[in-house]
Amino acid sequence: MKVGNQTIKFKNSPKIFETSSIVGPKEMQGPLASHFDMHNDDIFFGEKTFEKAESRLMSDCINNLFTKASMDASRIDYIFAGDLLNQCIASGFCIRDLNIPFFGLYGACSTFVESLILASSFIDAEFANKTVAATSSHFCSAERQFRMPLEHGNQKSPTAQCTVTASGAALIVPKDYSTTTGAYATYATPGKIIDLGISDIMNMGAAMAPAAFSTVMTHLEDTGRKADYYDAIITGDLGVLGSEILIDLFSKEGIDISLIHKDCGKLIYDDSTQDTHCGGSGCGCIASVFSGYFYKLLKQGKLNKVLVVATGALMSPLSSLQGESVPGIAHAISIENEVV
Amino acid sequence: MKVGNQTIKFKNSPKIFETSSIVGPKEMQGPLASHFDMHNDDIFFGEKTFEKAESRLMSDCINNLFTKASMDASRIDYIFAGDLLNQCIASGFCIRDLNIPFFGLYGACSTFVESLILASSFIDAEFANKTVAATSSHFCSAERQFRMPLEHGNQKSPTAQCTVTASGAALIVPKDYSTTTGAYATYATPGKIIDLGISDIMNMGAAMAPAAFSTVMTHLEDTGRKADYYDAIITGDLGVLGSEILIDLFSKEGIDISLIHKDCGKLIYDDSTQDTHCGGSGCGCIASVFSGYFYKLLKQGKLNKVLVVATGALMSPLSSLQGESVPGIAHAISIENEVV
Repeated sequence: MKVGNQTIKFKNSPKIFETSSIVGPKEMQGPLASHFDMHNDDIFFGEKTFEKAESRLMSDCINNLFTKASMDASRIDYIFAGDLLNQCIASGFCIRDLNIPFFGLYGACSTFVESLILASSFIDAEFANKTVAATSSHFCSAERQFRMPLEHGNQKSPTAQCTVTASGAALIVPKDYSTTTGAYATYATPGKIIDLGISDIMNMGAAMAPAAFSTVMTHLEDTGRKADYYDAIITGDLGVLGSEILIDLFSKEGIDISLIHKDCGKLIYDDSTQDTHCGGSGCGCIASVFSGYFYKLLKQGKLNKVLVVATGALMSPLSSLQGESVPGIAHAISIENEVV
Repeated sequence: MKVGNQTIKFKNSPKIFETSSIVGPKEMQGPLASHFDMHNDDIFFGEKTFEKAESRLMSDCINNLFTKASMDASRIDYIFAGDLLNQCIASGFCIRDLNIPFFGLYGACSTFVESLILASSFIDAEFANKTVAATSSHFCSAERQFRMPLEHGNQKSPTAQCTVTASGAALIVPKDYSTTTGAYATYATPGKIIDLGISDIMNMGAAMAPAAFSTVMTHLEDTGRKADYYDAIITGDLGVLGSEILIDLFSKEGIDISLIHKDCGKLIYDDSTQDTHCGGSGCGCIASVFSGYFYKLLKQGKLNKVLVVATGALMSPLSSLQGESVPGIAHAISIENEVV
């Protein structure tokens, strides 16, 4: 059901039944290491190229999801997935082997919540009984595609973020699929593209923060909720600077989100020891941090009402060379343990 | 409602209320020229680069859709769109200016039906009152991204297809939105990725035909329909060779689709005068040919029941260099003038 300007209310409370997360070596040196399901110390994940490694990362993540949920791939109706690689090849080659009908998505780092929204929508509308949402990113494949080859050894500017090597996946089922309770998708607010003219591709946080602000404000207006209704407003991946901008934008509206705002890009690394500047990014960041950390806090009852907001920067290296600014987008989904 | 293995039955008959199509100069020399709504003799569409031209192409197409439907952009709930450019920048920069909540999609040349399925799903589930599905492709931006710079002047192999410079868009509304009748989305069959090992990137038809076969066969099994239930099974873009393979695959199952099968890639050019080898391709091809040609035949009652099947090749130039084969995918949607 549509509510307000751009929000969907899920009538049937699609349930996030299980999640899965996997990260690479650098993420295992970070503060959230103990929360991830799986990791690999080999940045190649046993493959010959970084791109094949990213596909393997997603594949390992999804297969772990099926193991955790005691679910055979043949029982999944549809998978909604994407990644940062050109032509979404990490997802494509992974899902080729899974033999599941596939909706390919591209929303840059916003893709994980885009996939959660669509996977939940298909359950809510009874188009499907079991759907999967998944995304991945890989530092080395992203560096050479979006920035410079690793061999170049270029320095990063202080506002730069570090693409996370990680994948996250969620299995969505109808509310009554099992007797377990909690972690229901209740509302979704897909975002508009917001572009305030930032053209520094090493400052994604500033480019994406206005989109996060737009989507969260619209979500609150559409649902009639106050920001403090939520135990946490979880963004990914605004990083350190983008998070400051978001808090500042809300404060100008007289809303203090500083205590409930969490950013996956800030949480996944410790800049003081890991030299990650403004934090993590990449569509594997919020995917792995939500799946590995926040989802578990929801299931433990330590959080009960969260708004998950993934942000993406919709530029390409070519559009930047052609003088375009960086358009931002943010998609939000609220996930709650109790359904009214 | 889910029926069979991978098919959705739309309960509320989402209506394709209007479509829009625009093509470039080469397409206006082809057999379907008189059917397209708009064209431009300038391959740059007034812009400075091919990529900006593609964004303009989609923008002109969608704005023409709104004009034809007497619809303001502000009344559109969600837009589902994608293109072939890295990071889907044709869609991103076009939709930035439209200010409509945006789901970015990537399914290579299958994206138009992926977008039609999702846009229809959101109407059927009452998540939205008005949605738009749109895709684009541009010969010159695709050549330099996927193949060689135009300046290189390389020869094409006989099985090659020519990326179409075109965009198509459709406005989907609830069945009772207006008194006009016809062109309802009735079933959707999202496809699995099928890869039989074709690695020649100049032979996309052969790589995608098995995916089209898989999706159409599954659709027929799931719905209990025979192939001849449909007035036309419209694929895009198998081209000349891929179409022959598809007809052959069906004939091995004892099903003759030769009289009802139409391929947008075959229809849009005349190889005898246009040197287009196996025909057109690109996600603007089926978008413009469905929107400009087949949709109008439906509205005129010359066709009443069609299955629209968009095929995509999910490789990238990099995956091919890394020795991967070309995975194919096909998504199908049935569009009918009468709803049982």
